[in-house]
Amino acid sequence: MTTTTPASDQVELGTWMAREIAEQPQVFDRIVRDRSAAREVAEHVRRFRPRFVLFAARGSSGHAALYGKYLVEVGLGLPAGTVSPSTTTLYGAEPDLRDVLLVSVSQSGGSPDLVEVTESARRRGALTVAVTNTPDSALGAAAEHVLDMAAGPERAIAATKTYTASLLALYVLVDEIRSGTATDLSHLGAAAQRVLDDNVDRVADAARRLRFAERIVTTARGYSLASAAETGLKLAETSYLVTRSYSGADLLHGPIAAVDAETAVLAFRGAGPGGRTMADVLARVRERGADVLCAGTQPTDALLVPEVDEALTPVVEILPLQRLAWSLAVARGLDPDRPAGLRKATETR
Amino acid sequence: MTTTTPASDQVELGTWMAREIAEQPQVFDRIVRDRSAAREVAEHVRRFRPRFVLFAARGSSGHAALYGKYLVEVGLGLPAGTVSPSTTTLYGAEPDLRDVLLVSVSQSGGSPDLVEVTESARRRGALTVAVTNTPDSALGAAAEHVLDMAAGPERAIAATKTYTASLLALYVLVDEIRSGTATDLSHLGAAAQRVLDDNVDRVADAARRLRFAERIVTTARGYSLASAAETGLKLAETSYLVTRSYSGADLLHGPIAAVDAETAVLAFRGAGPGGRTMADVLARVRERGADVLCAGTQPTDALLVPEVDEALTPVVEILPLQRLAWSLAVARGLDPDRPAGLRKATETR
Repeated sequence: MTTTTPASDQVELGTWMAREIAEQPQVFDRIVRDRSAAREVAEHVRRFRPRFVLFAARGSSGHAALYGKYLVEVGLGLPAGTVSPSTTTLYGAEPDLRDVLLVSVSQSGGSPDLVEVTESARRRGALTVAVTNTPDSALGAAAEHVLDMAAGPERAIAATKTYTASLLALYVLVDEIRSGTATDLSHLGAAAQRVLDDNVDRVADAARRLRFAERIVTTARGYSLASAAETGLKLAETSYLVTRSYSGADLLHGPIAAVDAETAVLAFRGAGPGGRTMADVLARVRERGADVLCAGTQPTDALLVPEVDEALTPVVEILPLQRLAWSLAVARGLDPDRPAGLRKATETR
Repeated sequence: MTTTTPASDQVELGTWMAREIAEQPQVFDRIVRDRSAAREVAEHVRRFRPRFVLFAARGSSGHAALYGKYLVEVGLGLPAGTVSPSTTTLYGAEPDLRDVLLVSVSQSGGSPDLVEVTESARRRGALTVAVTNTPDSALGAAAEHVLDMAAGPERAIAATKTYTASLLALYVLVDEIRSGTATDLSHLGAAAQRVLDDNVDRVADAARRLRFAERIVTTARGYSLASAAETGLKLAETSYLVTRSYSGADLLHGPIAAVDAETAVLAFRGAGPGGRTMADVLARVRERGADVLCAGTQPTDALLVPEVDEALTPVVEILPLQRLAWSLAVARGLDPDRPAGLRKATETR
């Protein structure tokens, strides 16, 4: 088993996913180099002066939206929520959305329910922005403004580079809305490359440690909640593991009862308040006998993430976990490029 | 193994949980009989004219909040969201909350983070309402208005009657805010009793079918999403199962890859659009070979729920699932009254 990027003639399983994981440093460089599109959308948002922000998204993009919610609440000082598309698509809810900024996030831009929610929100007075990897999609046409995440074509069904590109596009957008001095992000591509390089052996070790795990819980607090949720989804998609993801706080509210010596816990504890409050959670899951693997900044952590600003940590800390999901799948003889029963764009209403 | 309510001298495990499950029809009768407190709070809300509703809650109360979000979006035509307490408690976010109604839901009223979020929201202009079973709690003191869910003392650690009482209190509150003619809810206690009586043998069958299940996925769409999430939590708390809960739509977006012949799927398909759109989801999980148990209105469904208005279905459809969680725990020799590693009120910040 190897966890380095395979050349196409060496490895047949998961070639696309491995390549797309490896491309992320370049994708980040591209996004932070030219912020003009984000700046233009931000200018419209500032003029609109939203009072509330709503996100519409599903799957990996839903985790990007969860991250976006933190950026908006902490960075813009605006309350934010997540749309339940079915209130519109199933029950015909027509909420008054004047003063509301609706941000729809979708790699493919093709989900009929997101298109419907976006069209309906626009009719009801919301300023609509689509963050998508496919600007000429139905979603791109439905939204008033489109922000291209510019991750390049993604061929593996499991989203990797479009996930982190969504996070980074949202970060840049919020940074531009806040205006003032734009945060310097020129280091991010290099940080991402370092995360990939530093974790080659660590990912291989973690994959061996988890190879026979049947119960996996992922957990984090704060900005990194998105990373815990995305890790859970990646493991479910590629290795077919029933993985539960919890906020560290919610975990202590009940599900901790299901954590025992048969459970592997993947916990994020990057720099900053979110990571620091994980100490309690880690103590409790260790008390219960779980095998705990941390993604953090300590040399003793199973997976190493760099000390970037906490609000940026989710963009880079997920990379070794994507590799881990890939490695576990390949070790189990599964093809992470083509998970069973999945299509790239999911048509839900 | 028996699934009927045990007398205290017959069964030692889970006596309190079983009693509290059985009490729910009486709790419902009590809540719907006297709506004056809800009417008074609703009057304040109407005068405030909120533009946006935020819910703050964790654990089972978080699932009640998810249900409340549907009630608000569909029934009041207002956008709604869920507070991430950590944006306030960890990152000191101070969003502008004028025109915002904050509804905090907590059985114990004792979670420091909810108290802090409520106090902070009140300072920042929100109208704050606490829905709690403990009005003289710190949360009750923090909120401007308190709605007592009046479920009576709950002694089992796994919440049952306080969960459904939260749902019903929220339903009555939203119904009163909408005003006009109050929905007749006098049938609800009897419907709940019928659900308990009709499912005694069905719950026993389902518990036998799931006794050795290692992978359980719960799923629903629309209002019943709360039921899927709450079922997952109840099974985790009482039987220590790692259970994943998904919106039917999200399930098709990736996690379906983890559904196979080793997986049990608990699906809700009550009357109404939410239940009807589950047909696609059920077809897909059956294709994958899963053992599917439905809670629905068809005689062929594993668990039977009555045909009440879809917006009320979550209040009654969870009852047989609570019994199922209880039965599975007792069958496994676990005590559902005292799950390992849990306390009744969880102190997270």
